[in-house]
Amino acid sequence: MIDDTNTVRPGVAEILSIGNELLDGSIQDGNSYWLISRVMKLGGVVARVSILPDDMDVIAQEVQEALNRTVGKAPDVLFVSGGLGPTMDDLTLGAVAKGLGLPLEMHAKAREMVRQGFDALAARGSVEQGGLNPAREKMAMLPRGAIALRNPAGTAPGVLVEREGRSVVCFPGVPGELQQIFQTSLQPFLAKIFPEQAFAQHALWIGCNDESVLAPHLEWFQKRYPDIHVKARSGLFDENPKLKFVFSLGGQKKREVEDALDRALHDLTVRLEEYSYHVTSATDGSE
Amino acid sequence: MIDDTNTVRPGVAEILSIGNELLDGSIQDGNSYWLISRVMKLGGVVARVSILPDDMDVIAQEVQEALNRTVGKAPDVLFVSGGLGPTMDDLTLGAVAKGLGLPLEMHAKAREMVRQGFDALAARGSVEQGGLNPAREKMAMLPRGAIALRNPAGTAPGVLVEREGRSVVCFPGVPGELQQIFQTSLQPFLAKIFPEQAFAQHALWIGCNDESVLAPHLEWFQKRYPDIHVKARSGLFDENPKLKFVFSLGGQKKREVEDALDRALHDLTVRLEEYSYHVTSATDGSE
Repeated sequence: MIDDTNTVRPGVAEILSIGNELLDGSIQDGNSYWLISRVMKLGGVVARVSILPDDMDVIAQEVQEALNRTVGKAPDVLFVSGGLGPTMDDLTLGAVAKGLGLPLEMHAKAREMVRQGFDALAARGSVEQGGLNPAREKMAMLPRGAIALRNPAGTAPGVLVEREGRSVVCFPGVPGELQQIFQTSLQPFLAKIFPEQAFAQHALWIGCNDESVLAPHLEWFQKRYPDIHVKARSGLFDENPKLKFVFSLGGQKKREVEDALDRALHDLTVRLEEYSYHVTSATDGSE
Repeated sequence: MIDDTNTVRPGVAEILSIGNELLDGSIQDGNSYWLISRVMKLGGVVARVSILPDDMDVIAQEVQEALNRTVGKAPDVLFVSGGLGPTMDDLTLGAVAKGLGLPLEMHAKAREMVRQGFDALAARGSVEQGGLNPAREKMAMLPRGAIALRNPAGTAPGVLVEREGRSVVCFPGVPGELQQIFQTSLQPFLAKIFPEQAFAQHALWIGCNDESVLAPHLEWFQKRYPDIHVKARSGLFDENPKLKFVFSLGGQKKREVEDALDRALHDLTVRLEEYSYHVTSATDGSE
């Protein structure tokens, strides 16, 4: 994200996953996890994920709160998945419009996309009738000012609304359709929100079987290198017990970020070895 | 949940899953899905799930907002998973205390649980030293008035805080530990929040390949039976195309709920057959 001061910072995304079926145990939300992996690849950050029921007021309120966050990282883009279909329980676009204080309107281009989608399905015999009907036209009722995103894998267009420097992107909940829209129709937008970022990550095994005795050393490290994110990941508790920690750092230039992380981990390794802990890179085949 | 008017309604849960590793693509949040399945089995409802970063202010604010929800279903219990360990990035208990406006205090019983846990690990050679140290004692700093829940699978106690008719339950993020605490130490609490509820669910295949042309019939049904939850699930598009819909209804007495759902689906079937759609139960082997 290039802001007013012309500096690059990682684009921040937030995800709303919509659907009662995600909250009643019918299916596990996989769209969020997929979107997280894509945002990370683009050098961005996911600040939070919310799974919400098919409830107009709940979704509308969350859209509003997300776009006005003052605590934590405010999102540049809010990804919303689910609830774009033709039936009554698909109410995401109405809720997003309500959250943004915009009316829902018939969108001529979206309507044409829906019509073409059903015509194509009818031509290959997948549905009896092509063209439009009221339920199909519902998928073309978008918040005022929205951009319709072609859906190469289904009939419900994706929807992009930009407003006051923040954006809302709505995807159908069907994973294949969400992924196709993200990878094709949304690319020009993504390139703007997530300019290439550098990101370095490295894991260490520390020869110790007890996180609590390592805690003071990690605190020392974290105070010295506050930008490096540290996460305990797993342990091996056989005759040579060891714990795995993952260290990550983001920035602007790949080489600089990698060098900074290397220097910091060298520091940590020296200190830990002074305290007689054996330290190895988790990527040198010792896993 | 038995409320002031002595009527039974389904207990409502909300879930906060805490950890940067859930937002950076390292691991997928499985704890929420597991908790959802348990709450459903107990006849309860999960109103929303949020995945939040290891950020004190973000978590504290969300705890406060969850316990004061006025839009959608307000939770009787807020399940919080992750961030109970000994290291600096484990800040859930501090954040929950902050959200509740309570101080963090050393909890004598929790401290004893932690000590015993590490003594047991030391006795079987899993850690070098038993007993306590500052990082271990951190796991026994609980919000004032909290109840410590024995963790049969690890060293960080679970934590239950009850306040003004709502409750917060904190679990370690390690799935085995969360599950053990839920299934053992938390049972008396769960029996109070989720008294046995009746729940009926039935799926129908409707001989049609296009949700949009069924939409008016489903709207008719939904207006007639607003308490029944309808969800489109999947389709078969071979020579006999059909769509699967799941209908569910909750209530107090199993027999009554099942009868009500049966009657409603009979109504729907009659109507759809008038419109020449073939309808079969999805549980009669036709799947």
